[in-house]
Amino acid sequence: MNVIILNGKRISADQAGLSAGDRGLLYGDGLFETMRVERGAPLFLEGHLDRLEEGSRVLRFASLPEREELRAGVVAAVRSNGVYSGYLRLTVTRGVGGFGTPLARLDQPSYWVEAREHPLDLRRYDRGISAATVSIRRNPASPLCRVKSLNYLESVLAREEAVGLGADEALFLTTEGDVCEGASANLFIVHKGRLITPDLTRGPLPGTVRRWVVENAARLGFPVKERWVEREEVFEAEGVFFTNSTWGPFPCVEVDGSVIGTGKPDPITRQLIRQWRVMIEAIPERGDRAPSE
Amino acid sequence: MNVIILNGKRISADQAGLSAGDRGLLYGDGLFETMRVERGAPLFLEGHLDRLEEGSRVLRFASLPEREELRAGVVAAVRSNGVYSGYLRLTVTRGVGGFGTPLARLDQPSYWVEAREHPLDLRRYDRGISAATVSIRRNPASPLCRVKSLNYLESVLAREEAVGLGADEALFLTTEGDVCEGASANLFIVHKGRLITPDLTRGPLPGTVRRWVVENAARLGFPVKERWVEREEVFEAEGVFFTNSTWGPFPCVEVDGSVIGTGKPDPITRQLIRQWRVMIEAIPERGDRAPSE
Repeated sequence: MNVIILNGKRISADQAGLSAGDRGLLYGDGLFETMRVERGAPLFLEGHLDRLEEGSRVLRFASLPEREELRAGVVAAVRSNGVYSGYLRLTVTRGVGGFGTPLARLDQPSYWVEAREHPLDLRRYDRGISAATVSIRRNPASPLCRVKSLNYLESVLAREEAVGLGADEALFLTTEGDVCEGASANLFIVHKGRLITPDLTRGPLPGTVRRWVVENAARLGFPVKERWVEREEVFEAEGVFFTNSTWGPFPCVEVDGSVIGTGKPDPITRQLIRQWRVMIEAIPERGDRAPSE
Repeated sequence: MNVIILNGKRISADQAGLSAGDRGLLYGDGLFETMRVERGAPLFLEGHLDRLEEGSRVLRFASLPEREELRAGVVAAVRSNGVYSGYLRLTVTRGVGGFGTPLARLDQPSYWVEAREHPLDLRRYDRGISAATVSIRRNPASPLCRVKSLNYLESVLAREEAVGLGADEALFLTTEGDVCEGASANLFIVHKGRLITPDLTRGPLPGTVRRWVVENAARLGFPVKERWVEREEVFEAEGVFFTNSTWGPFPCVEVDGSVIGTGKPDPITRQLIRQWRVMIEAIPERGDRAPSE
């Protein structure tokens, strides 16, 4: 039976209930982080907690659970479920309260952490995925672009539309027509040995793996440029890849039915994926799984 | 103790819990309707259920609880809590499921209804409220503008910003700078004996009271024009009023610190409010309250 850590308590997942008066449920008034767990360790935990804090400032949370408490909840969810290679989600809501309540008075946030074993299907890295441009456009002027909030319906509808078009992932443009991101991933293009990705003023979520690529690619010899990206540049690229916390970097070999580059993952994307695997394999074995719990 | 109707069952409000795996909570993946209850009757119940159905089509719900079941849940929430003049909220979510699940497979929606006594403070109609233009802009191209979804954070932040500016309600412009709506209300302006309101292509929610005004104002001698509204028109208006399900039509006498018209509710707005009260007073007494339940 899966176990959830809810406000610091271990609860069986099928009994974990949030109040029907919680603003997370009433207004999507909350934030979440998804993390990859490898060797029993949540990847980029501190980076995810940093983003959560930044998001809580954007949404004007009066308070957030202590970082130490959240960290402990994450570790407890991993151990309680004996996760070695899997998925983890941390959600924080503004707690119980009505629409008109001043946000400064809402200082009792709720949080919970779920984690489950879910090894990756490595074929995705070899084959690459396909993407389709969707009809919904991101509004880069919205503060909600900058935070991973529970207002996630645009991504839900975008993914569904993309799958209906026969693709694996969505490609969001902005209201001004430039390239933004996927439904649940950031986007990079490879062009003349350089990496290009929409800069954060264009509305993509500041992803933790996006940051890992930006901070590490230059060291690997691939300069990264964050800037306005025209849609045409995607089709002219030698390679395209997405990044998210679940998959790290993963190749995209087809957009809107057009083959990207040779139709196979390009060498630079492949090298980044190798670096990603090296980074994971360098994680010390935790040896603290509790498989029988 | 307040009682909630959750998936057809009567549950004490402090025990009503939604699964932490419900997509309403994970992604704001759901819809809601708020209704005014007067004389024990939920106003515009069928109109609200119509909008819920339309919203479920926009969000591609695979299924919605039967209309008869939702209607019964609304009535049960009103009676169980002995509400005579109050507030009611019906929420429907897409139920339990992960992000990648095709929407067609998510055919077990959750719903709940809460209702509580909450008589209106009638001074709002005499005094009028103030509004302030907020920094977030509505994106009229988003399908989410057309539905009352649980993705309600823009309104949460807009209301907070407006209150921080010393106003009662927010005024949303669109990404193109024209007038859209309030944080939780539609907006009308009175100009030369006519009513003007942003048309639905400009992103306002299709409010039930907005529709009541559009359908009834002409009969009362006030033609209504739905069209693009420039921000300057608000300041040049003889009167401004908002509409929502809680208050019906209510006057706004100040926007961004500028007095509208004479600074008092204008005669046309006052007449509409009288018609609103007449409509409510024509509701037959239900006489089916269960005050001791």
